[in-house]
Amino acid sequence: MTRKYQVVGIGNAMVDVLCHVDDAFLEANGVQKGIMQLIGLERAAELYDRMGPAREVSGGSAANTIAGIAALGGRTAYVGKVRDDQLGRIFAHDMRAQGADYLTPFAPADSAEETGRCMVLVTPDGERSMNTYLGVSEFLFPEDIVPEEMAAAEWLYLEGYRFDGPECQEAFWKAMAAARAAGGKVSLTLSDPFCVNRHRDAFADIIDEHVDLLFCNEHELAAMYPAPTLQASLDIAASHAETVVCTASERGAYVARGADRFHVDAVPARVVDATGAGDLFAAGFLWGLTNGHGLEDCARMGCVAAAEVIGHIGARPETDLRALLREHGLGVGG
Amino acid sequence: MTRKYQVVGIGNAMVDVLCHVDDAFLEANGVQKGIMQLIGLERAAELYDRMGPAREVSGGSAANTIAGIAALGGRTAYVGKVRDDQLGRIFAHDMRAQGADYLTPFAPADSAEETGRCMVLVTPDGERSMNTYLGVSEFLFPEDIVPEEMAAAEWLYLEGYRFDGPECQEAFWKAMAAARAAGGKVSLTLSDPFCVNRHRDAFADIIDEHVDLLFCNEHELAAMYPAPTLQASLDIAASHAETVVCTASERGAYVARGADRFHVDAVPARVVDATGAGDLFAAGFLWGLTNGHGLEDCARMGCVAAAEVIGHIGARPETDLRALLREHGLGVGG
Repeated sequence: MTRKYQVVGIGNAMVDVLCHVDDAFLEANGVQKGIMQLIGLERAAELYDRMGPAREVSGGSAANTIAGIAALGGRTAYVGKVRDDQLGRIFAHDMRAQGADYLTPFAPADSAEETGRCMVLVTPDGERSMNTYLGVSEFLFPEDIVPEEMAAAEWLYLEGYRFDGPECQEAFWKAMAAARAAGGKVSLTLSDPFCVNRHRDAFADIIDEHVDLLFCNEHELAAMYPAPTLQASLDIAASHAETVVCTASERGAYVARGADRFHVDAVPARVVDATGAGDLFAAGFLWGLTNGHGLEDCARMGCVAAAEVIGHIGARPETDLRALLREHGLGVGG
Repeated sequence: MTRKYQVVGIGNAMVDVLCHVDDAFLEANGVQKGIMQLIGLERAAELYDRMGPAREVSGGSAANTIAGIAALGGRTAYVGKVRDDQLGRIFAHDMRAQGADYLTPFAPADSAEETGRCMVLVTPDGERSMNTYLGVSEFLFPEDIVPEEMAAAEWLYLEGYRFDGPECQEAFWKAMAAARAAGGKVSLTLSDPFCVNRHRDAFADIIDEHVDLLFCNEHELAAMYPAPTLQASLDIAASHAETVVCTASERGAYVARGADRFHVDAVPARVVDATGAGDLFAAGFLWGLTNGHGLEDCARMGCVAAAEVIGHIGARPETDLRALLREHGLGVGG
């Protein structure tokens, strides 16, 4: 049975505000390097005031993944909240223009919070330090989840960041229930080690009850399933989720399913801006999976997509991902 | 006497919406290649709807020039109208963050028109086709010009595009009168051949009465001063303005002052996106001029700055322009 969507993603809808800074700027402004920090409007204004000229590009972790799947030609849709303002309309346009359905109505123009923004400070080493003002993206309520749309998905893709904020988990549970009732599967990304620390119990519940496929990087894996080695953490994770995929930057990705373990190498790339590497890995992986490829090829596809996105500024693909997969000998059928 | 500003620029404040398209897209959507077309809100919405994912970067022709002068370390300020909305605040931030003063109060948030936008469609050859919704940038009125600020400028830099819209010329005349009364000089860019066709008489009046330095490219020069050859047009232009600088893409730039003529070569560059080439040429030239360099070196500085901006997407400098000038043996003192 062909479903309407291969993947439906749910997450924090964000516009990224990208700026090059040096490490001294991070220090002087109390920005922790390489992770995501949640900030309020006041801090956002202060930081923006100190930042140099920036550029604005649609972002949001799961949104980047869905954009990547759409760029690969996949049937995909996104759920996440923006306000009816200029940045919200930019977000919606970019999602639809990429070929994904965007399913969430705008929050009214007079909402107290604006469309969410992530100030992405990129240092010369390509590392990105993210400062997120969630804005209306926090207010994704159960009524924003339309069960029929969830039931139309082969896979749900849930963003861990979306656990921050009121009532978010109710929306996730409603989405998962609708998807599973229709025979759909559920994937989750842990998003960030501090996000894991904030929501470990809720993550554990969802993973144990619903998650078929868990995405994480090594830091998030260590936070979620503490153990002396990556392999040991992976073993624990694999006892909770059917399939676990752990990315490890330039060391590629590790996959665990039941007793099976394997590793794929990263695709060599010059890191201009690491933003979106994990998101695009998930895009390549899920695209492969929903087109009938084996797990190892799926992981390779993830690595190819990740290598593309770190080669330029911004977390959405800029070149033809299908052509890239072909260049790497990864059969692009579907 | 050191004045507060080396250059004060006046123009249409714009946020650029940048998108890669192929030539077929231009044809299918009736977009004329390589020039600027004014469009209304409805056409803007239609075109945006058909465009692929885009990125947003502050733009505006004279604004790009002023950003370039600020990036070179010059004392500079900008006058141009945005609305108090998200894109307007982005524009103001980027200008100030680059080191330029931004002198114009926001149009109120409830203004009928929004902050101006320019949809820049970049084809694989690096050529850009611009579709401009002027928004509130049209409504720069004489009361937005503060005579003291104009009097603080060594040079005014006026954008030809700003001749489109009501009452714009009154604002220009007020600015020029204040600047000249204080001994300041006036430069003008012709902006676009069709803009010249729309406003030839007004341009002629301003050039004859006030313009000390005229910037143009060969197409604008031909439209303004029709003659059988570039040199012949240049001769006519030089009889109207003290100094005329005509850029000619990969053939560099031609300068005329009185009976003197000279030419400088372009700096070789791979064209990724031609947007802003003329704007950054003017930035390098004016920076040189107001730092006491000879006309030939000024033109070389213009070519270096132009080569930087066409090497990447977006019309604002992204690398250290002062270091680039030094690499080209162009003394960077001031």
